[in-house]
Amino acid sequence: MSGRSSNLLDEYRGRSSFRKEGLAEFIDSEEAVQFKKDIFSKMEKDPLFKQSTFTESLEEIRRKAYLRASRIKEYGFLSDPRHETSPYYFYTLLTALTQYDLSVMSNTVMPLHFFGGAVKALGSEQQQQFYTDVTLEKIVGCFALTEVGHGSDARNMRTTATYEPSSQQFILHTEDFEAAKCWIGNLGQISTHVIVFAQLITPDGQNQGLHGFITPIRDPDTLLPFPGVFIGDMGEKIGLNGIDNGFCMFDHYRVPRENMLNKYGDITADGQYNSAITDPRKRFAYSLGTLLGSRVGILNMSTAFLTNAITIAVRYSAVRRQFGPSDEQELSIIEYPLQQWRLFPYLAALFAMKTSVRKINTSLLQLVKTLYDPDKIINQDEMDLMAEMHALLSSLKAVYSWTAQAAIQQCREACGGHGYLKGSSFVDLRDGNDSSCTYEGDNNVLQQQASNWVLRLWRGRGKLPQPPSPLASTLFLYQTRAANMTARSEAELCHPPVILETYRWLVCFLAERTSNVNSAMIQGGKDKFTAHNHSQVYAGRNLSIAYGEHFMLQTLWDVCCKADEHSKQAQTVLTKLCALFGLSSLEKHLVYLHQGKYIDGVQSQLILDSIMSLCGQLKNEAVSLVDVVAPPDFILNSFLGNADGNVYKHLEKLLMSSAEKMGVRPKWWPELSKKLRSHL
Amino acid sequence: MSGRSSNLLDEYRGRSSFRKEGLAEFIDSEEAVQFKKDIFSKMEKDPLFKQSTFTESLEEIRRKAYLRASRIKEYGFLSDPRHETSPYYFYTLLTALTQYDLSVMSNTVMPLHFFGGAVKALGSEQQQQFYTDVTLEKIVGCFALTEVGHGSDARNMRTTATYEPSSQQFILHTEDFEAAKCWIGNLGQISTHVIVFAQLITPDGQNQGLHGFITPIRDPDTLLPFPGVFIGDMGEKIGLNGIDNGFCMFDHYRVPRENMLNKYGDITADGQYNSAITDPRKRFAYSLGTLLGSRVGILNMSTAFLTNAITIAVRYSAVRRQFGPSDEQELSIIEYPLQQWRLFPYLAALFAMKTSVRKINTSLLQLVKTLYDPDKIINQDEMDLMAEMHALLSSLKAVYSWTAQAAIQQCREACGGHGYLKGSSFVDLRDGNDSSCTYEGDNNVLQQQASNWVLRLWRGRGKLPQPPSPLASTLFLYQTRAANMTARSEAELCHPPVILETYRWLVCFLAERTSNVNSAMIQGGKDKFTAHNHSQVYAGRNLSIAYGEHFMLQTLWDVCCKADEHSKQAQTVLTKLCALFGLSSLEKHLVYLHQGKYIDGVQSQLILDSIMSLCGQLKNEAVSLVDVVAPPDFILNSFLGNADGNVYKHLEKLLMSSAEKMGVRPKWWPELSKKLRSHL
Ligand SMILES: Cc1cc2nc3c(=O)[nH]c(=O)nc-3n(C[C@H](O)[C@H](O)[C@H](O)COP(=O)(O)OP(=O)(O)OC[C@H]3O[C@@H](n4cnc5c(N)ncnc54)[C@H](O)[C@@H]3O)c2cc1C
Ligand SMILES: Cc1cc2nc3c(=O)[nH]c(=O)nc-3n(C[C@H](O)[C@H](O)[C@H](O)COP(=O)(O)OP(=O)(O)OC[C@H]3O[C@@H](n4cnc5c(N)ncnc54)[C@H](O)[C@@H]3O)c2cc1C
Repeated sequence: MSGRSSNLLDEYRGRSSFRKEGLAEFIDSEEAVQFKKDIFSKMEKDPLFKQSTFTESLEEIRRKAYLRASRIKEYGFLSDPRHETSPYYFYTLLTALTQYDLSVMSNTVMPLHFFGGAVKALGSEQQQQFYTDVTLEKIVGCFALTEVGHGSDARNMRTTATYEPSSQQFILHTEDFEAAKCWIGNLGQISTHVIVFAQLITPDGQNQGLHGFITPIRDPDTLLPFPGVFIGDMGEKIGLNGIDNGFCMFDHYRVPRENMLNKYGDITADGQYNSAITDPRKRFAYSLGTLLGSRVGILNMSTAFLTNAITIAVRYSAVRRQFGPSDEQELSIIEYPLQQWRLFPYLAALFAMKTSVRKINTSLLQLVKTLYDPDKIINQDEMDLMAEMHALLSSLKAVYSWTAQAAIQQCREACGGHGYLKGSSFVDLRDGNDSSCTYEGDNNVLQQQASNWVLRLWRGRGKLPQPPSPLASTLFLYQTRAANMTARSEAELCHPPVILETYRWLVCFLAERTSNVNSAMIQGGKDKFTAHNHSQVYAGRNLSIAYGEHFMLQTLWDVCCKADEHSKQAQTVLTKLCALFGLSSLEKHLVYLHQGKYIDGVQSQLILDSIMSLCGQLKNEAVSLVDVVAPPDFILNSFLGNADGNVYKHLEKLLMSSAEKMGVRPKWWPELSKKLRSHL
Repeated sequence: MSGRSSNLLDEYRGRSSFRKEGLAEFIDSEEAVQFKKDIFSKMEKDPLFKQSTFTESLEEIRRKAYLRASRIKEYGFLSDPRHETSPYYFYTLLTALTQYDLSVMSNTVMPLHFFGGAVKALGSEQQQQFYTDVTLEKIVGCFALTEVGHGSDARNMRTTATYEPSSQQFILHTEDFEAAKCWIGNLGQISTHVIVFAQLITPDGQNQGLHGFITPIRDPDTLLPFPGVFIGDMGEKIGLNGIDNGFCMFDHYRVPRENMLNKYGDITADGQYNSAITDPRKRFAYSLGTLLGSRVGILNMSTAFLTNAITIAVRYSAVRRQFGPSDEQELSIIEYPLQQWRLFPYLAALFAMKTSVRKINTSLLQLVKTLYDPDKIINQDEMDLMAEMHALLSSLKAVYSWTAQAAIQQCREACGGHGYLKGSSFVDLRDGNDSSCTYEGDNNVLQQQASNWVLRLWRGRGKLPQPPSPLASTLFLYQTRAANMTARSEAELCHPPVILETYRWLVCFLAERTSNVNSAMIQGGKDKFTAHNHSQVYAGRNLSIAYGEHFMLQTLWDVCCKADEHSKQAQTVLTKLCALFGLSSLEKHLVYLHQGKYIDGVQSQLILDSIMSLCGQLKNEAVSLVDVVAPPDFILNSFLGNADGNVYKHLEKLLMSSAEKMGVRPKWWPELSKKLRSHL
């Protein structure tokens, strides 16, 4: 049997029905594919990026993450001017680096994205110098919103910035440990500046709400904190250990008046608060800009993690053989319907995620241009777009990160024991993606915002001719819908428009249910807060998920429709992926389709049968499909997932290297031997 | 707000309706509770067991795991004679140590359990010396079945043991790397002996199948491998890093004839193979004994992991406050129905797991006594018991380990950002439990064996009056069942017998479906192997899960029925947990209840509503319930989960200690500073 396995990947490649060439470009754009290649090839040639085969010390992990991020900037990838004009550069860089190492990505992007982004979005003309400085790496900046005691509930942050007219300074103060800024990326050891969000207290004793303050905290020459700031490092985390998350407390620490981010709200020398934009809704919308971008970042990151995980698991499943119809014939585990069912829905989800994130990246660029344009007054359409973008991202951020998290676990298990080796790379993917479920807004909190928005539109039925939905994610809400599914054969059901129609019914059903549960609570005498909290599970929560999935399915289907530009065969395969994504996502909502009598028992079984049928049809396409999305071996960095399919050769190499590293016996062998001999 | 949080745990404690005292004993037995206390208190007093606050080097992790395991043995916990006579000792030790550190548990138990267990079950009278030696730590032994190329499919292992009459030796040989023994716990660095499972080749060239060979591999004085054995260490794994998993290859390596485990099959000096037990079915059943025990081990381990995770998450949810109906009033996040729904079903599952594992531990002890009794000829009832035990464990091993894995992830996310700190301990729980999904039989492979057995019984309907099911896990299979659910109110539905009845209907429905899918494939001309593989997803797989869950629900319900021996109040709360476990487990099968018209849309909604209602009712019980099962803080080792509820104080301590450890600036700060200055 031995030796033969090396050709199995090629055998499966030979069986796929479509031409791979050009498909990546069709899915991701030519620019993105080329830019990614440039990034990867630079990294591969540079010894600084050589992957380590064992876990290094925390100190060394951080040092390397910093140096590598620095090198990426030296290569000019971050300052590439095309970031500003084309949607295909910035997030491609982010994705590529995430596929290599989450911490390197973070270290490259975060200071600019969070600190720089806040300066750009919320700072005045004069403050833009800080943006330039952080871009040039003259300073390292971070973004401090979260406190020990408050995360999701930003309004209740307790750090204060009290303005003192006599000195024209703000006095930053932390009352106790629970008010300490906490979890701040890059604060622990390397930042020189931090944007502190604090409650602005004016001399009249009024709290003017949270504002951002550009706060120098460390001397760049000595890297020691300035007196009045206590900074601590948070130490080891589950993942992302190349980033020095930190906490800090201010003891009546003074910051000059000029350092308040004052584009939309400022204070006079004598302490009068005023805001250029009087409409607080608008002001709020503006300040959202930064967070939108980082949530889009998460979508790209989860897509990156899933790409790596599914590539490894599919390739290994083609190569790994176990059991068979006879002793002579062993089957690749990819042949087992169970294994297909465990993996292929995630492969399908990846294509939905990729196409949707491309669309989102593009929309965001337009939106940000509007937001950052100092001469532009935002209009109602743009406000609508922003609200929709916010809702959509709130839903998708959760759907993407959870999908990737579940997928990574499944891929790990799908590789059996060998998947449990550190060198399979699954643990890094799992630990890395895990953080995405929490930061930039906890998934469970965030998705409540998505459903709130859909609900608001839902309740506007009859009042407006169509929902304000420039991205068209909810246009169907006000349309009439079929009362039940007409499809009664697999062929009918696997046609994505049929699944989309089902999703539209589902979103409306769940909006109605959420709305009804909520109203019933209110009528029962509960307050709005309580009613809201009691209409999440089996209602708002599911609405948020279904809403996001519908968008993804629609986007993937739009791409399928144009896929004949690449080839008819690719179109056929992509359509199968689209149907599989739709049906397997729908599976978790089946009970609602039953409750609403949208389907009967035969149709629900047909859905399950169709999922299995599609899995079977994709069996010979899967290896080629991951080839289309896979990063180079050097980036994948998993002995299970190399493009040559020589799993056992790579495992041997890996094991021999640790055998060497560990030596034939542990350094402490005398203790062990003594123990054994003591009983003789 | 600050400072107040420390009393929140006590507030919730005060709100629970039942008396905690004695409940642990009622659930776990007095012996188990006392033994656990003894173990924990010895460990807490011994500085060797002081938990480290950061990840040490692989070498040090292993050294400590070895020394700690050794110390546990010195304390006499492993050699406690009560292990042999009472079901409340051995697995209590295993659970307690798993709660502390999986590697310490493994190092303590594995050599005895796997190596010793195999000697005991498969070895002759003379070979029992090896059992004694491993008990006394004169030798360290391990168990080598898996190879690089084969894991689940043990029959296809390729290591050979060729008997040579002239020397009266077996020649162990590994043809190539794919045939190397691999993943063997304790082989990498510390074992002196390994039981190698190899294909026995007799002088007539016949392959007599897999047999075990006690093989000395390392000199205990030098700990260097003997010539002819190449041993390598596998290096870093996802978790369980205190164990030196290893691989090895034999180059015509000689083992004396006496070293073949020969209780049930032996070879004469001149190479004739013979077996005392001619019935191969019986021989096979005997050799199952060892694996049964280790799968029971997994049930205990997953229960241990889940206990820690849910304790931490429930306590933190009571203490953590975020948002509220007004600015003045912040709510503990446990007040949010969404948070309850994310956690309480796992709390309920824990009680089902605990009560079921106690029952299994007890049954196993009886079974093992029978198996290990040299004078006993196993009878048909015992064969039946063994078959049922095997099926039950194949189902439960997957259900337990998957439940714990999903629960740990949910608990991690439920603790928000602070849950992502290494010191929350979630990452160790997740990484540790993860291995349980794979070893002792991959979950997805194993559960096929459970459904196969149920299916076999199902097909025997009409032929036997009742299924051979000494543990009563399938007695209902041949009984008539109601065609649909009659419950139409929450009160009716939350009565566990109603849920049990539903589960019985479900198991029969799924057995019938699996059987039908299988038969249809066969009639369609497919072979048995293919038919089997195509009747797993949405059929056999679900059957296996539902079968196991029914057993757990039944067991928990039996305990509830007796709970008035403790108190009526506890009985009420346990019954709620029982109903919640039943209904929330049923949720994932709802579509089958719809398809089979067992429920209508109103009833399915009633199930969802009842889940939420039960969650609400358990809100004030949850903290006290975890108090009943929680290990001491020292074992839990999570700043989020201490019994005093002083989360922020413990976080402060932890952060200050890493701030101290890391210093105010990294060692490599000059590199960083130079970088910053280079741009000036
Ligand atoms: C790796 C990492 C890096 C980070 N980097 C930064 C940074 O650079 N700058 C920064 O400012 N912050 C940073 N953070 C903090 C991060 O933004 C917060 O962790 C996040 O916003 C969640 O807040 P929290 O941790 O306080 O969770 P909490 O808000 O306390 O939530 C805890 C749990 O309660 C639940 N919950 C809360 N409210 C509700 C509700 N109303 N209904 C139902 N459930 C609820 C949540 O779902 C969650 O499961 C980082 C965090 C991590 C893990
Ligand atoms: C931490 C650790 C410790 C271990 N310790 C030991 C030890 O001490 N001694 C020892 O002998 N072994 C040990 N093992 C090995 C372990 O027993 C095997 O990993 C396990 O039996 C699974 O086998 P495998 O890894 O070859 O997976 P495979 O059998 O290759 O399975 C790979 C994937 O294919 C799927 N699959 C396989 N067959 C089928 C099928 N017919 N239908 C559907 N899907 C299928 C599986 O579900 C799995 O997801 C250890 C493993 C680990 C991770």
